[in-house]
Amino acid sequence: MNTKKLLQALEEAFQQQQYGTSSSPIELYEPVKYLMALGGKRLRPLMTLMAASLFTDEWQKALKPALAVEFFHNFTLMHDDIMDKAPLRRGKPTVNAKWNDNIAILSGDAMLILAYELINTVEDAHLRQVLNRFNRTAMEVFEGQQLDMSFETAETVTEEQYIEMIRLKTSVLLGFALELGAIVGDADADTTQALYDFGICVGLGFQLKDDLLDVFGDPAKFGKQVGGDIISNKKTFMLIEALLKAEGETAQTLHHWLNATAFDPTEKVKAVTEIYEQLGIKEIATQKINYYFDKAFELLENLPIEQSRKEPLRSFVEILIDREV
Amino acid sequence: MNTKKLLQALEEAFQQQQYGTSSSPIELYEPVKYLMALGGKRLRPLMTLMAASLFTDEWQKALKPALAVEFFHNFTLMHDDIMDKAPLRRGKPTVNAKWNDNIAILSGDAMLILAYELINTVEDAHLRQVLNRFNRTAMEVFEGQQLDMSFETAETVTEEQYIEMIRLKTSVLLGFALELGAIVGDADADTTQALYDFGICVGLGFQLKDDLLDVFGDPAKFGKQVGGDIISNKKTFMLIEALLKAEGETAQTLHHWLNATAFDPTEKVKAVTEIYEQLGIKEIATQKINYYFDKAFELLENLPIEQSRKEPLRSFVEILIDREV
Repeated sequence: MNTKKLLQALEEAFQQQQYGTSSSPIELYEPVKYLMALGGKRLRPLMTLMAASLFTDEWQKALKPALAVEFFHNFTLMHDDIMDKAPLRRGKPTVNAKWNDNIAILSGDAMLILAYELINTVEDAHLRQVLNRFNRTAMEVFEGQQLDMSFETAETVTEEQYIEMIRLKTSVLLGFALELGAIVGDADADTTQALYDFGICVGLGFQLKDDLLDVFGDPAKFGKQVGGDIISNKKTFMLIEALLKAEGETAQTLHHWLNATAFDPTEKVKAVTEIYEQLGIKEIATQKINYYFDKAFELLENLPIEQSRKEPLRSFVEILIDREV
Repeated sequence: MNTKKLLQALEEAFQQQQYGTSSSPIELYEPVKYLMALGGKRLRPLMTLMAASLFTDEWQKALKPALAVEFFHNFTLMHDDIMDKAPLRRGKPTVNAKWNDNIAILSGDAMLILAYELINTVEDAHLRQVLNRFNRTAMEVFEGQQLDMSFETAETVTEEQYIEMIRLKTSVLLGFALELGAIVGDADADTTQALYDFGICVGLGFQLKDDLLDVFGDPAKFGKQVGGDIISNKKTFMLIEALLKAEGETAQTLHHWLNATAFDPTEKVKAVTEIYEQLGIKEIATQKINYYFDKAFELLENLPIEQSRKEPLRSFVEILIDREV
């Protein structure tokens, strides 16, 4: 099934989504509508539809479950933005900024329940499994978010701990999005698992690439401020590797910048980026990213499904990988 | 089934509840354990078990679903306490006070998912319906909470709007707790609905009685500060009635106290209480409370179940009604 058509079906479904009854308090549902209307790539629900399309031509069966994944994702954004005191999301005021924290807490809660209402549209034969997997995934996303917050004040974070954190915080939902499509499409257990694993690998690759672009991205193309992670000392894969590799004077310079309390941001970004280049961190990160993407495509390649049927998903992910955003 | 035994089974089940895996971040689950350990009357899960016991001797089938209701209730408390900036809950620091708002947001979210994990233990035949009703109930609780917050700054609130707000915020969960027990106990649709309605009436009666005790309760027995609602101008049933009934000088005095920005709290409580007494608000409220309790017992009386089997639930609710807490 053609990706553009799936995306169109998704947008129509989002527009038709009902919120509460006519007598419901507008303050509860307005922020939900607002955040959903800010758009985004609809990556996760699209993955659900593409996964379902691998197994059935009735991909419409996966439409409401796909919406559930997007509502859940946006619920996490609404609550994360409170925790981060973020003023902007997709270039517009966040719900906490436009309304307030209390509204963002409660509307976020409502958004999570909306996701469960949409999950409850899967066929009887799949309900138990889908609910079970959705619950587990949600918990893992929270565990990832908690680890991310804890790492901010942690003395050291190992590469292994960092990969586990991003697996939980960002990859498991991508994995679940694909798994959900497979379940709804009546795929067998092994194929369902392989699609989940494909999602995990793609998600890890995406996140590591995001870390890389934060340092080496083209400022004209990268959506966020280049060097943001360096300025905030975020313990990304890049920094963790640099701390492992740096010795002597290089290590001293790196620690100087990490401990500096008053500094020129541009100067710090420049200095730390130079250290990364010196230590070959760009190459190490690129290697790791390619490892995950290669593993993902191998998993997809080996799925016992006609190659032509896999083509839309394969080329969609390839395009995403090549985009520098 | 003996109420004490049910309560004991509940407490054991709470203690055996597992949270996350051994590698999960402690910051996510510790606040959940903390809040659940603060206790409470376990009213709602007890209602689930008592409702199930009306139809089956295998009330243990309802144990995990009953826990789901209590986890959901405590999740709402955790998030409400952030919104209210509450320092204390059951005499101990709230999660937001003991940790911080971010921890309370995320642990609350996790608690909601825990509730869904427990909901997912009902038999296949009931899963769709229970999930559907649980989702609906959760949304209504949020709508009630939003209405409660909106009423704080509303010009006027009618009696009808107030009753609808407390129905949503507090009664539907009590109704659902009973309904859930009935569904798990394989009750027919009419009986299940009647038990839900019984819960709604009991819930409305309890909340209105709480409003009454806030003004006329015995300070030695009432858990909170007597007069708290008067001090904060909370638009309770009492105040709404008083504003409807007050005329001439009484109305002027009432408005004086409502508009006063600097005042002696004790003096304000005394003055407004006197107005309530003068206008017969205590009697009007008592009448309304009795109306709901009478309706509740009539619904219970008419259930097509052996009277002796209903006895534990009837006497349990009667004891709760007579307690001035």
